[in-house]
Amino acid sequence: MKTLVVDIGGTSVKLLATGRRTHRQVPSGPSLTPRAMVRSVLAAVADWPFDAVSVGFPGPAHHDRPLREPVNLGRGWVRFDYEGAFGCPVRLMNDAAMQAVGSYAGGRMLFLGLGTGLGTSLVLDGTVVPMELAHLPYRDGRSYEDVVGDAGLRAAGTARWRRHVTHVVDLLLAATVTEYAVLGGGNVRHFTRMPPRTRRGDNANAFRGGFRLWQERGTWR
Amino acid sequence: MKTLVVDIGGTSVKLLATGRRTHRQVPSGPSLTPRAMVRSVLAAVADWPFDAVSVGFPGPAHHDRPLREPVNLGRGWVRFDYEGAFGCPVRLMNDAAMQAVGSYAGGRMLFLGLGTGLGTSLVLDGTVVPMELAHLPYRDGRSYEDVVGDAGLRAAGTARWRRHVTHVVDLLLAATVTEYAVLGGGNVRHFTRMPPRTRRGDNANAFRGGFRLWQERGTWR
Repeated sequence: MKTLVVDIGGTSVKLLATGRRTHRQVPSGPSLTPRAMVRSVLAAVADWPFDAVSVGFPGPAHHDRPLREPVNLGRGWVRFDYEGAFGCPVRLMNDAAMQAVGSYAGGRMLFLGLGTGLGTSLVLDGTVVPMELAHLPYRDGRSYEDVVGDAGLRAAGTARWRRHVTHVVDLLLAATVTEYAVLGGGNVRHFTRMPPRTRRGDNANAFRGGFRLWQERGTWR
Repeated sequence: MKTLVVDIGGTSVKLLATGRRTHRQVPSGPSLTPRAMVRSVLAAVADWPFDAVSVGFPGPAHHDRPLREPVNLGRGWVRFDYEGAFGCPVRLMNDAAMQAVGSYAGGRMLFLGLGTGLGTSLVLDGTVVPMELAHLPYRDGRSYEDVVGDAGLRAAGTARWRRHVTHVVDLLLAATVTEYAVLGGGNVRHFTRMPPRTRRGDNANAFRGGFRLWQERGTWR
């Protein structure tokens, strides 16, 4: 079976299908609707056969459906009929959760996406549990995301930001009773030596996660 | 199959077996070792037949084993051979997690144990995910447990404590992307009207959870 993975970001929608080596992408942005997304995706991969789609969605999702409208895209994502539009079975998952699925290496794992915000997912025994720990208070009225996200990086500078991240990783590993964390997202590049009990993520893992959703059917939900 | 449920607390160990209507208990305390616990449990239920045991343990546990020594009991709990001592298969789980299993009514559920401290577990699709969210910072250098546990209740008084609990429930439901919470533990009695999106737990649910671990085999882990 061939799977098309659709990884929806704020500036581009990245695409890869089973058997393809290089991804393609189409533009995203604050006015992108799901209908326009599907139209440009189908046009971009017209020569790629696929039987199923995995969508990485930039927001909380449950049971293959966004839980609320995305902050940085257009409207209409919650009620959209993805399977009707793609014409095949669709599994939709939070984008960080999909990268987490692709990063999983057994045991209990915490995935932290260090990007504009802070994505948090827990993975255990073939189950990915998307979380929104980022918005909890951290210190001085600021949330984890305020301190560890892009704005926090700019405010604190790289060295202090790295210490914040290291401390936040410790806190969240303890809070979730978890053995190791994978740090993904663009800002992980600011670490040359990774913090204790962490491994470096890789954007390619989002695609791997999307493929896993269909390859290991019934395991991931 | 008959199950013996052993719910280990700081002051007593509560016992119930399949087909029994009333529980029994033996003393607990800061010097209780696992060997002494098993000895007094077996003496107390010598007339109760059972084929399997479920243990609710007052601390984090994983794969039927305590992750560290309990704070309020004696030593030796991590490495103890429970199946050898009871002479039958044993499933061991954090005590709040076991009550959470017994309280589960579908979907994604957060269980908060309002006692001396604050127990936190997530339950989803037949999987219980024990957490330690209680030790995360909440405000002014205090953790959720500091504010919502026994000490916080005494310091704030019932009315303010109820508002704190209500706010903490909101925060943690959002952080864990969860629809509803069950509030268990002794201090839930201070609520006459329950906070939004919560249901009242029941200590009897710890026993129900212990039975479920064996009745619905393979579902709970």
